[in-house]
Amino acid sequence: MTDVPASHPRYASLRTRDAIVAGVEGGVTSMHGLVAHGRGEAFDYLLGERTRHFARDAIDAAAAMLVTAERPVVSVNGNAAALVPADLVALAAALDAPLEVNIFHASKARERAIREHMLAHGAPDVLMPATNAVLEHIDSNRRFVNPGGIHVADVVFVPLEDGDRCQALVRCGKRVITVDLNPMSRTARTATVTIVDNVTRAMPLLLERVAAWRGDAASCRDLPDAFDNERGLRAAETAIRAG
Amino acid sequence: MTDVPASHPRYASLRTRDAIVAGVEGGVTSMHGLVAHGRGEAFDYLLGERTRHFARDAIDAAAAMLVTAERPVVSVNGNAAALVPADLVALAAALDAPLEVNIFHASKARERAIREHMLAHGAPDVLMPATNAVLEHIDSNRRFVNPGGIHVADVVFVPLEDGDRCQALVRCGKRVITVDLNPMSRTARTATVTIVDNVTRAMPLLLERVAAWRGDAASCRDLPDAFDNERGLRAAETAIRAG
Repeated sequence: MTDVPASHPRYASLRTRDAIVAGVEGGVTSMHGLVAHGRGEAFDYLLGERTRHFARDAIDAAAAMLVTAERPVVSVNGNAAALVPADLVALAAALDAPLEVNIFHASKARERAIREHMLAHGAPDVLMPATNAVLEHIDSNRRFVNPGGIHVADVVFVPLEDGDRCQALVRCGKRVITVDLNPMSRTARTATVTIVDNVTRAMPLLLERVAAWRGDAASCRDLPDAFDNERGLRAAETAIRAG
Repeated sequence: MTDVPASHPRYASLRTRDAIVAGVEGGVTSMHGLVAHGRGEAFDYLLGERTRHFARDAIDAAAAMLVTAERPVVSVNGNAAALVPADLVALAAALDAPLEVNIFHASKARERAIREHMLAHGAPDVLMPATNAVLEHIDSNRRFVNPGGIHVADVVFVPLEDGDRCQALVRCGKRVITVDLNPMSRTARTATVTIVDNVTRAMPLLLERVAAWRGDAASCRDLPDAFDNERGLRAAETAIRAG
């Protein structure tokens, strides 16, 4: 754990980093994931570290898309597992959807560590990438998915995803919901619904909207098609540039 | 090393991350330093990943300040050592200045690893923090400096520095030159000269300007006092906001 004194002005932010550093120490998060987290921190700083209206709109559309999906899947990478494991388990339970491990820097050991970490946070089961099911449109070592999970999903919730993977999922005809603090990233621009927010703030709000729409699924059926992701991204970029 | 395919559109950026991840693996960089690197990545993204006019002005003033200093010191932390070791050695040689290890998250092992790393990159010697020389104005475990280095320096080149440390150096009456991609950071606002640029792009330019001013030191004597750091920071913030 960090040795930063409580008198340090960025104490709270530095303590938050500890969760992701603990993820690395536990074999769950990659070191490259740590760098990506730092990048997100900076965009969050520029956003004022609060959930904006465009994020709330995206969360609402994402919840509607997940509730009305036929075969939703909740994808988990090393950063998401370190930051919001219990919220991901709760989301999968609310949707009756599988959790599936899906990481960028290939490592069997880390895939297993993420699975164990999610089981320890209450997941009844966690799907793993297999070798007999692949995504098209992507280079070899990142194409493996689970044949009963992402491979057959119609909607994939995949926070903090890489641009290539996101693009491949979309090209395979899936609707993709992501959480990404950089509205200019390829992931943000490629996904069907992009929630530009800190995943630790967005998850509780998403769970709340999923619970609300589950009680009233008929009313939200048209919401995903009416959602304009590009408009949301423009609003997010404006907010970041304006401060 | 990373397994990212060369076909990935962010290949160059992801490969750059490898240098800093290798720094962690070699015991040179802290994991918190990785996060800080990611944060810098985001600001660099907003800057268009190129050296802007305000950075060139700051580099010019910094080179003049270093060339005309009486006892300049080149401070090295874990991120700088991982990213630009040879450039730091070259700078110290050009200035006939000592290199001194100066890290944020205290660790004797990491201090030694940085020293070894710099020696391996051609440094004739590297000063270490001692226990008999301290900086005032800072919490206990970060105050130690070398009695023949930072402690008696008039100008300190300290890229990628923490805000508290930077402030303490300035309060001790030293002129501080830093490199920081966030023009709003406390370090950027506290330093005497802040180069808002990626340290990997800024170092070769700084070496070039040092060589130029060394050949003509008389002409650059007034440059540091004429330099307006606040104006540079405002220009950098405007560039980041405008895109």
